[in-house]
Amino acid sequence: MDSASFRAIGPTTYLCPTPTVLVGCAADAAWRSGGANRPNLITIAWTGICCSKPPMLSISVRPERYSHALLTQSGEFTVNLISEELLHAMDLCGVKSGRDMDKFGSLGLHPMAAQGLEIAPALQEAPAYLSCKVRQVITLGSHDLFLAEIVDVCVRESFFNVDGSIDEQAMALVAFVHGKYRALGKEIGFFGYSVASEDVLRRRLPHAAANQNVRAGKRSGKRLLRKDGKA
Amino acid sequence: MDSASFRAIGPTTYLCPTPTVLVGCAADAAWRSGGANRPNLITIAWTGICCSKPPMLSISVRPERYSHALLTQSGEFTVNLISEELLHAMDLCGVKSGRDMDKFGSLGLHPMAAQGLEIAPALQEAPAYLSCKVRQVITLGSHDLFLAEIVDVCVRESFFNVDGSIDEQAMALVAFVHGKYRALGKEIGFFGYSVASEDVLRRRLPHAAANQNVRAGKRSGKRLLRKDGKA
Repeated sequence: MDSASFRAIGPTTYLCPTPTVLVGCAADAAWRSGGANRPNLITIAWTGICCSKPPMLSISVRPERYSHALLTQSGEFTVNLISEELLHAMDLCGVKSGRDMDKFGSLGLHPMAAQGLEIAPALQEAPAYLSCKVRQVITLGSHDLFLAEIVDVCVRESFFNVDGSIDEQAMALVAFVHGKYRALGKEIGFFGYSVASEDVLRRRLPHAAANQNVRAGKRSGKRLLRKDGKA
Repeated sequence: MDSASFRAIGPTTYLCPTPTVLVGCAADAAWRSGGANRPNLITIAWTGICCSKPPMLSISVRPERYSHALLTQSGEFTVNLISEELLHAMDLCGVKSGRDMDKFGSLGLHPMAAQGLEIAPALQEAPAYLSCKVRQVITLGSHDLFLAEIVDVCVRESFFNVDGSIDEQAMALVAFVHGKYRALGKEIGFFGYSVASEDVLRRRLPHAAANQNVRAGKRSGKRLLRKDGKA
């Protein structure tokens, strides 16, 4: 296998899978008491986590977008995760402008006050949302990069297990891969599984513990195991 | 449905699914002629696309990581996409440090010269990789944010269809969801499908065109359709 087995396709935004989310924003809080400035939703795939402490994420927005002014004016937004049943509405939000339509109203969606924020709306139909405060805006080219601190996260009660853990599989989240929306498949590992004990592996990945490839990988992991192996 | 049906879990990095990739880097180009400074791999989930033009992405790295100095010194890195068969090796790269081991050698992986770069290695076993040049580094807290321009993208020849399109399904890419690795499932839509014609829908989503939910969504899409509806 050598470099000749690869084909260059030029500079392009080929990182994947990426998230695909609905960002909620508004010019001011008037919508919460029936005011004129309607809250808006914008579809974003150019997003990612950028820091653990404080928890931060980024979203990239074209300056000409209707939402850009709402974001810079209010300094707040929500990131609403997307389940499969929200996909169609989310795609529509990505091809229409809030200048021309009330996205919430037209799509049968509902804005609600977001935990930790005063202005930006959260999406009631989302399985979970992140409340974000803008800390920096950086001009990059076609897009401006909004770096924001995550000030709270809210998850729909129905996704909590009795032990307090969250059932992300039940959320039926969606991934974005080069213009296509993909459902999420089965769990095939967890962070640190390559150095986990057989007991942990058997408990957390019961179907895989008997899988030949996982066991083979586990053996090579053991050869590399060190007491202080944390990166 | 109201806000009482959500539970706040506090500020946390809950955006998902995120990518999970292997970033290739080196202090200098000596490794290409058998020199002493070995090339390294670091596992990154805190990454995302941040601009379309020029194409840019970001990765976030803790300052104390061995790779941090390699990135700042060289100003280059590769983002190597991860297929399911690379998952075990990628997880190991995420729990071990390049200070202590030759990640490429120990895991049976091979560095190769990256298209468009002079120093950073690409991963021969990857289905595709992006060659990146660092443009800005921003200190955020626990992590530093590296904003980089994507100068080229290379895809394994075997993933090209006869018509020049790329078969991303065949890549068997992996998503990261709160500490768990998830396989990607089936295609359930494409960007703009909510306003696509029946013919396009039938051709690109044959299984879905007969699906009641998609057709119902398509009808609501038609009510909103405008000639100049581009956001």
